[in-house]
Amino acid sequence: MIRLYHVPLSPYCRKVRLSLAEKKLEVELIEERYWERDPDFLRRNPAGKVPVLKIDGHTFSESGAICEYLEEAYPEPPLLPKDPAARHEVRRLVGWFDDKFHHEVTSKLLYERVNKKITKEGYPDSKNVKSGARAIKLHLDYMSWLLDQRRWLAGNELSLADFAAAGHLSALDYISDVDWNAYPTVRDWYARIKSRPAFRRLLADTVPGFPPPPHYADLDF
Amino acid sequence: MIRLYHVPLSPYCRKVRLSLAEKKLEVELIEERYWERDPDFLRRNPAGKVPVLKIDGHTFSESGAICEYLEEAYPEPPLLPKDPAARHEVRRLVGWFDDKFHHEVTSKLLYERVNKKITKEGYPDSKNVKSGARAIKLHLDYMSWLLDQRRWLAGNELSLADFAAAGHLSALDYISDVDWNAYPTVRDWYARIKSRPAFRRLLADTVPGFPPPPHYADLDF
Repeated sequence: MIRLYHVPLSPYCRKVRLSLAEKKLEVELIEERYWERDPDFLRRNPAGKVPVLKIDGHTFSESGAICEYLEEAYPEPPLLPKDPAARHEVRRLVGWFDDKFHHEVTSKLLYERVNKKITKEGYPDSKNVKSGARAIKLHLDYMSWLLDQRRWLAGNELSLADFAAAGHLSALDYISDVDWNAYPTVRDWYARIKSRPAFRRLLADTVPGFPPPPHYADLDF
Repeated sequence: MIRLYHVPLSPYCRKVRLSLAEKKLEVELIEERYWERDPDFLRRNPAGKVPVLKIDGHTFSESGAICEYLEEAYPEPPLLPKDPAARHEVRRLVGWFDDKFHHEVTSKLLYERVNKKITKEGYPDSKNVKSGARAIKLHLDYMSWLLDQRRWLAGNELSLADFAAAGHLSALDYISDVDWNAYPTVRDWYARIKSRPAFRRLLADTVPGFPPPPHYADLDF
């Protein structure tokens, strides 16, 4: 049995959920209020972070390590190419989104506007929100540039890089922070990702106090 | 030919340097003042970060992606075990150090006290320095707990997890921020890492304006 401790709008949890679903692995989702630092949860992952995955009694954490494990233990369909240099390109872009994009955009928009309220940490810092709103444009430009040359972000096959990016962008789209109309190439890519069966469950997520905009779950946005 | 664009005290560059040296790959080191955002450098890595590795005209970036590439292209000696669950444990710990330890400790001590001065970003924030000094103790406790059960951090073989941890701790040791005497198990582990030939070049690093303490390069510290 597979169980994922997660929070609905975490881009890292979303990346893992997309990998699981693409590999057709059924998973029981358990929402974990990680900021309350429940001792049972800390025993599962002393880092105190989600996602945490349990498979047949074994515990896996750190979203990057989880996705590499899933790739090795459940290789079909592959989310990493075979060639080492092409694998590097996927992992470089996973790092791009999970480190740089997270630092410059997700933490400045989603965390300020949603997480701070949920975890009762205070009010959004408008300086951060402005900086995130500026930075997302540069990232969407970079994605457009990549997607002008490739069908998917890291090459011509769907990969973990697309799921890492979709984890962040879908969470930001939930709070209407992505201006799809200004980036038609990225919108086409997102429409393709969004219409995959793996994406369905993410589009049904709701967070109390933060109703999603109507276009969030619309495949024709 | 292999060339690494780096800065001497970056834990991420150090992790890559240790992997290269352990695999006996000769590398030309080039110090890159990444914060000056030189256009040539940004062409190599639009993320604007070090390390960047060039091998025979191909460019690799993001330290995690670089180390996975080196592991696949130059498998001997292995720095990841064979079993998928054991590989997960290595990658989980690499994530622990490169994300959690970095966020809670390295960015609060090294970046405040050294990087801010080098990049002319201002003065150390004493609140951050205090928080880093508190947090490193919890991390050294966790490392002691792991090393009570295992010869190396992720198991009984040396792995990328040890190099990730050593990248951070050696950089902090350069500014005397590790209280080795209070953590004898971790000190023993660090003494074993430090005495490997792969470590030699790191111990010769110097940063203008920040002379290392005498124990930094001493194998018997």
